[in-house]
Amino acid sequence: MSAKVKRILVLHGPNLNALGTREPAIYGRATLGDIHGLLEALARQLGCEVECRQTNHEGVLIDALHSAKGGADGVLLNPGGLTHSSVALRDAVLAAGIPVVEVHLSNPCARETFRHTSLISGAAVGVVQGFGPAGYELALRGLMGVLSRDQA
Amino acid sequence: MSAKVKRILVLHGPNLNALGTREPAIYGRATLGDIHGLLEALARQLGCEVECRQTNHEGVLIDALHSAKGGADGVLLNPGGLTHSSVALRDAVLAAGIPVVEVHLSNPCARETFRHTSLISGAAVGVVQGFGPAGYELALRGLMGVLSRDQA
Amino acid sequence: MSAKVKRILVLHGPNLNALGTREPAIYGRATLGDIHGLLEALARQLGCEVECRQTNHEGVLIDALHSAKGGADGVLLNPGGLTHSSVALRDAVLAAGIPVVEVHLSNPCARETFRHTSLISGAAVGVVQGFGPAGYELALRGLMGVLSRDQA
Amino acid sequence: MSAKVKRILVLHGPNLNALGTREPAIYGRATLGDIHGLLEALARQLGCEVECRQTNHEGVLIDALHSAKGGADGVLLNPGGLTHSSVALRDAVLAAGIPVVEVHLSNPCARETFRHTSLISGAAVGVVQGFGPAGYELALRGLMGVLSRDQA
Amino acid sequence: MSAKVKRILVLHGPNLNALGTREPAIYGRATLGDIHGLLEALARQLGCEVECRQTNHEGVLIDALHSAKGGADGVLLNPGGLTHSSVALRDAVLAAGIPVVEVHLSNPCARETFRHTSLISGAAVGVVQGFGPAGYELALRGLMGVLSRDQA
Amino acid sequence: MSAKVKRILVLHGPNLNALGTREPAIYGRATLGDIHGLLEALARQLGCEVECRQTNHEGVLIDALHSAKGGADGVLLNPGGLTHSSVALRDAVLAAGIPVVEVHLSNPCARETFRHTSLISGAAVGVVQGFGPAGYELALRGLMGVLSRDQA
Amino acid sequence: MSAKVKRILVLHGPNLNALGTREPAIYGRATLGDIHGLLEALARQLGCEVECRQTNHEGVLIDALHSAKGGADGVLLNPGGLTHSSVALRDAVLAAGIPVVEVHLSNPCARETFRHTSLISGAAVGVVQGFGPAGYELALRGLMGVLSRDQA
Amino acid sequence: MSAKVKRILVLHGPNLNALGTREPAIYGRATLGDIHGLLEALARQLGCEVECRQTNHEGVLIDALHSAKGGADGVLLNPGGLTHSSVALRDAVLAAGIPVVEVHLSNPCARETFRHTSLISGAAVGVVQGFGPAGYELALRGLMGVLSRDQA
Amino acid sequence: MSAKVKRILVLHGPNLNALGTREPAIYGRATLGDIHGLLEALARQLGCEVECRQTNHEGVLIDALHSAKGGADGVLLNPGGLTHSSVALRDAVLAAGIPVVEVHLSNPCARETFRHTSLISGAAVGVVQGFGPAGYELALRGLMGVLSRDQA
Amino acid sequence: MSAKVKRILVLHGPNLNALGTREPAIYGRATLGDIHGLLEALARQLGCEVECRQTNHEGVLIDALHSAKGGADGVLLNPGGLTHSSVALRDAVLAAGIPVVEVHLSNPCARETFRHTSLISGAAVGVVQGFGPAGYELALRGLMGVLSRDQA
Amino acid sequence: MSAKVKRILVLHGPNLNALGTREPAIYGRATLGDIHGLLEALARQLGCEVECRQTNHEGVLIDALHSAKGGADGVLLNPGGLTHSSVALRDAVLAAGIPVVEVHLSNPCARETFRHTSLISGAAVGVVQGFGPAGYELALRGLMGVLSRDQA
Amino acid sequence: MSAKVKRILVLHGPNLNALGTREPAIYGRATLGDIHGLLEALARQLGCEVECRQTNHEGVLIDALHSAKGGADGVLLNPGGLTHSSVALRDAVLAAGIPVVEVHLSNPCARETFRHTSLISGAAVGVVQGFGPAGYELALRGLMGVLSRDQA
Repeated sequence: MSAKVKRILVLHGPNLNALGTREPAIYGRATLGDIHGLLEALARQLGCEVECRQTNHEGVLIDALHSAKGGADGVLLNPGGLTHSSVALRDAVLAAGIPVVEVHLSNPCARETFRHTSLISGAAVGVVQGFGPAGYELALRGLMGVLSRDQA
Repeated sequence: MSAKVKRILVLHGPNLNALGTREPAIYGRATLGDIHGLLEALARQLGCEVECRQTNHEGVLIDALHSAKGGADGVLLNPGGLTHSSVALRDAVLAAGIPVVEVHLSNPCARETFRHTSLISGAAVGVVQGFGPAGYELALRGLMGVLSRDQA
Repeated sequence: MSAKVKRILVLHGPNLNALGTREPAIYGRATLGDIHGLLEALARQLGCEVECRQTNHEGVLIDALHSAKGGADGVLLNPGGLTHSSVALRDAVLAAGIPVVEVHLSNPCARETFRHTSLISGAAVGVVQGFGPAGYELALRGLMGVLSRDQA
Repeated sequence: MSAKVKRILVLHGPNLNALGTREPAIYGRATLGDIHGLLEALARQLGCEVECRQTNHEGVLIDALHSAKGGADGVLLNPGGLTHSSVALRDAVLAAGIPVVEVHLSNPCARETFRHTSLISGAAVGVVQGFGPAGYELALRGLMGVLSRDQA
Repeated sequence: MSAKVKRILVLHGPNLNALGTREPAIYGRATLGDIHGLLEALARQLGCEVECRQTNHEGVLIDALHSAKGGADGVLLNPGGLTHSSVALRDAVLAAGIPVVEVHLSNPCARETFRHTSLISGAAVGVVQGFGPAGYELALRGLMGVLSRDQA
Repeated sequence: MSAKVKRILVLHGPNLNALGTREPAIYGRATLGDIHGLLEALARQLGCEVECRQTNHEGVLIDALHSAKGGADGVLLNPGGLTHSSVALRDAVLAAGIPVVEVHLSNPCARETFRHTSLISGAAVGVVQGFGPAGYELALRGLMGVLSRDQA
Repeated sequence: MSAKVKRILVLHGPNLNALGTREPAIYGRATLGDIHGLLEALARQLGCEVECRQTNHEGVLIDALHSAKGGADGVLLNPGGLTHSSVALRDAVLAAGIPVVEVHLSNPCARETFRHTSLISGAAVGVVQGFGPAGYELALRGLMGVLSRDQA
Repeated sequence: MSAKVKRILVLHGPNLNALGTREPAIYGRATLGDIHGLLEALARQLGCEVECRQTNHEGVLIDALHSAKGGADGVLLNPGGLTHSSVALRDAVLAAGIPVVEVHLSNPCARETFRHTSLISGAAVGVVQGFGPAGYELALRGLMGVLSRDQA
Repeated sequence: MSAKVKRILVLHGPNLNALGTREPAIYGRATLGDIHGLLEALARQLGCEVECRQTNHEGVLIDALHSAKGGADGVLLNPGGLTHSSVALRDAVLAAGIPVVEVHLSNPCARETFRHTSLISGAAVGVVQGFGPAGYELALRGLMGVLSRDQA
Repeated sequence: MSAKVKRILVLHGPNLNALGTREPAIYGRATLGDIHGLLEALARQLGCEVECRQTNHEGVLIDALHSAKGGADGVLLNPGGLTHSSVALRDAVLAAGIPVVEVHLSNPCARETFRHTSLISGAAVGVVQGFGPAGYELALRGLMGVLSRDQA
Repeated sequence: MSAKVKRILVLHGPNLNALGTREPAIYGRATLGDIHGLLEALARQLGCEVECRQTNHEGVLIDALHSAKGGADGVLLNPGGLTHSSVALRDAVLAAGIPVVEVHLSNPCARETFRHTSLISGAAVGVVQGFGPAGYELALRGLMGVLSRDQA
Repeated sequence: MSAKVKRILVLHGPNLNALGTREPAIYGRATLGDIHGLLEALARQLGCEVECRQTNHEGVLIDALHSAKGGADGVLLNPGGLTHSSVALRDAVLAAGIPVVEVHLSNPCARETFRHTSLISGAAVGVVQGFGPAGYELALRGLMGVLSRDQA
């Protein structure tokens, strides 16, 4: 029996809609659209489907993580600034009950002290940070590996 | 003259919609619906009315606390993960100007260190934690006691 | 076969003997005797027995928790100021091996910083705080619920 | 050529809708409507336009800061309780790419310890706190000064 | 009866005499003389009198705050580096018994960590920071507003 | 009408029974008996009565503070090592409802870091430390002054 | 001339009476009686005498340490939970003036953070932890070595 | 041969000149002149001489402590707000080489957290706090006792 | 002109030689040899060369990072336990002057607190953690992306 | 069948080669050779074999712990100054997979603050500290007890 | 053209006037006069001029640093106890705009914890500490080297 | 009798071999060879001999410090990144039993927070930092002064 096509939800948190114009020295010139293009191309190659969403609302992210349960096989999550303050988002990652990979475009450890710790990482299966848009591709590969390993 | 029937608002914060399936080792198998059933039965017994809402949005919780002012006599609030991070929610509890009781299904003090302090407790009239769904019943009794004591 | 009548030990720690005269703005005017009256009335209603003790000695509290093992089915414990400093009392709660509910008349989180953390809570099954004497009633109900749930 | 009329966005965060009735000992009796009246009168005098919004939702504030980019020349922001916890709002202030002035009605440094540090201030061009409603007027003057200086 | 002309003392603390040449990237090119010119012009407009002093000595600042009691109606105080270390200056602000507004040219929260907390703010009626020389004008307006409000 | 003779309770906490032989480099060679002699002589001179007790038990100290309420007019308390750890003793000082003066033979601030803060001082009317046995005499004089001032 | 038979006091602090039934995953199945048997057998072999006491009262431990001065040549002390909170017990160890060895059945450093530091260790001649009941035997050997070395 | 009359320097630090009018709820209504009167009367009784000085300048206090070496036999020092921040003043107390007693009118431990630790106490021979003006009398007695004990 | 084949140095720090047998619940069953096999296969696919080394010596890692300058185009570094303690290794990463990617098999943020911060991350171009052996593959892809981007 | 003779590896970390001459007030006059003599004599008595090594290199200690796996039945480890800083050594203790006992000649808890916590203890089966050279003998006895208990 | 003779200002902060008599175990027996003699001799040798000042007043130090701008080529500064508390002095070092070398007679890192961090060092070009009076000579050589290097 | 020629060991720790190419904005362009040239020239002038070694291995540094005992009269030590993390190196400095001077090319206090404290300084006789290569010359002069002073 052939394996079902995996559905991956890609969630971008606060301020990532501003990508490309927001502090380009830190976040680069690529837009969310560019990143979605990269992910869709890679998804075709890896035989999975990606659905991409961005929101500046913590609550919407939590809602989306809940609906992912059943509606998706795994999640790529860039929590933006909520990384460092949201216990509720951490709880939602755990509540989702499917593998969640945390992605950061920049390297938070090379920035202000309050960005050096993540409330999300302890609940994620893995973390990729510092690679810019390419980090989403790495995270998608990593997530697909986790899913196929779990299936085995 | 007979006393007016008390109206109690029950507010559940982030991730509590997932109750019953979310980390059952910690939160148990009861659903929000089960809890609402318990509360409605007890409300009938105590002669009050309960209205139950859940949201994953901090802002919606704050809105609800504001609208409770005038629309309700007291509040049962389970702030979920916002307990440990939301100064705005604490401010809303104070702004509501009616008694708010904080409820937790689990015992946060027996979990990760970042769950050991609550920004909400200092603004609540009382706290009930660790009793699972039954904690809401205790909190409703406690809140009714506070309301009748204040009335006296 | 009818269930055995539950025996509940109620333990009050340091300074609670002064209730009614000690800092009434914080602790109210009710005395320990009043609280015992409330608990005995509720115990009759719930079909259990309560035995109430107060001591200013940490060691006596620990002794009592040990003797509760076998001699009681559950404990209501108001540790007073020991809440924030006694690792030995926490150990005794665990050593008792029966459910212990922590009760506070006031809401410690709304007071000095050194009262914001409890060494006891992490070892208790539940916590009730801020409801004054009525909090003991809630705690007794909560404890009875835990005992009947464990029995089921 | 005559200078274009400056458009200023005024953003009020969580709980500021309750102004006038919420903890009047701290926040005073003026309402948001009163403050908007003051700002509109001053704006006419200074030759600028103000648009005033209030929301209890962090995400709506972030959305508004993003839309201010292009739609406004500067922002007056009272982040309410989010001041002390929201990294995402700080990021949005930076993403807006236009001058943002932080305003507080009360003096947070004279209140609880958790209000003594601001995540927003480090991203704002200036801060005005402690002057009640008049602080918004000072902030508008300050912001207009920054805008004319930048233009020069 | 016409109101008495308000007398405002403007106190600049350590290193502000070096304004204009000291770290201009942070503090700008304006000198204390320039700031005094701005304040005198505004004072004439607002119908008050300003007296401006600068000193590098904590003790002289404290002496001046004491003598302001009776000799002035309010104070604008830029405590310079003493902001972050001087309990004695905080005590003097309280001892002055008249409204004191704290002013900073730069935004201390955007600089080294040891500049993120102020011992003075908790004793001041209001704070204005980050607007450069114009901040003194805002502070004077704010102070005059406080004085007329207190008089009403 | 002549004033009633004041009764002063002198309480020595843990390890003070060992005075004279315990770490004489820190605590000196005088015994508790010597100190009681000094206090009785001074009490005769000041027209008051002293009753002196020592115990190594926190609970006994708390019991004694409670019984002092009504049985004594004021207390001299050397809490020994409990100074730095006992919230329960602090609560008892407040519960006593009569003036309590804290005394230390040595200067705790010149010793280990964990002796630099006192949980008791914030509840005492005054503190005398570092003067050896003579500190008790100073404390008795100070307490008598407080009592006569309160009476006035 | 033959050396005098050494007398060793063995002191067990809070909750150690519950040994064998208390949290056996951490503390094992041996009882205090078993440990006393081991110690007495070893004492015969090493030519010393042991006297064993257990108490849940800090004050009784302090009393015993004082009476050990003169009545014993050395002490084995398992302070239980007092290890992490009792300055008074540390002072008593120093006041005893004879060698005291600290013993722990479990390895506190492998447990909760609040068990990672000991107030007692800095006053003890040596520490033995993590070996279960056998740790008392090692501690007795270690103490006898210290005593014979001091004698030499 | 008769003993030389002791000369005692009394040093009051920042803001103590405002005594009587400064925050009377905390510091009382007595002025420095009243305190000097008390001290001079007691000095006559004890057979010593007091010289009293007040300054708001840290440097003047340090100068005075240096000149006390040789010019005085002991010092009463109320460091005011410098208590909590001045390492230089602590060094000066040590440099003086004569006994220095620290005095506080209020009880700093019952006030803001930043007043709970003293940099001076570790260098002083003794501390008296919380007794208002009478504390200076106690301190003078204590200092005289130290001087006569050192002489013996 | 064709691009030069990239040479990638793979450095494994302390205890990674024990992979496969060391704490398999955390680190899995794969050995370093398995990981090297994965990397060599991927390197062929990506058109680069990998050289793999493991050492338990901080100094050898630093030597290797220095020799990588000139001898390699990029580095994959799993610093093991040195991640949390070695400033010298961080300095070596910076001294290498070529892109270094930090890899962790496990997710340190889900383990002991002392593993939650990394001294290395702030000096690395990117971090991949939590994916087990597959994380090295992701890191190699990420590093190759960085190198080709830098070349462009 | 007779039990196999146990092989015990004794590892001394940095600076222990200097024993006997290094800070003798803290570490005593015995040399490593003396300690090895003691251990060999005791090993003969207990029927085991000891192999003793000293190194100043963290990496060599880690290598040795790895090679102990299979080559030894247990380890005595004095980590020297690495106790307080080396996560890598802690990991190696866990990787060894055989019982490791931590030994210290001095009592680190009675020294500088940075010596009060051990990264190693949480991974060791037991700790012996403060007994000088005899501590190694106690540790060997303790380790042999652990090994025979595990075998049972 | 020959280089201008460099003028070096030597500033000694609080308590350094007491050198020679103040805590000689820490600071030695040399006086400020001795140090000035050393510096003048070395200045002649190095072809520069030194002007030496001491003050116990923070404000005078700041004034002197300001006047050094233009009046001197570099500064040797021993900030005494202000090292650890004065942000204003740090600001003055930066405001001086010429190289400042920080000197300490003793090694603050080997003393109390509050002397382990310096607010001044981060603003100085270099630091010399622990060499007693000779440290000033080293600092003068170091400063001359900086000045000639800057000139080159 | 002529004094013996002093032998000075110069030890450079991790990453100092990369001097001249490593982060030249911080560490400058001079190489270790350049520094050794400077030191040899100065040694000839001062009549001493220098032997220079560099290693990236903590253990080799410790070995060298031990062998310096007897083989050298003093040590110049630049511990590199080990400054902030190595207790073992601190212990080795003490074990060497000869004067050790700590040298840093850059000024660590003007860099990341984790470089602001040194574990080595408290064990060194003196520290020289921030002067670049010339700092080694100053340190050699300082060390020679210490050696001649000790000899006197």
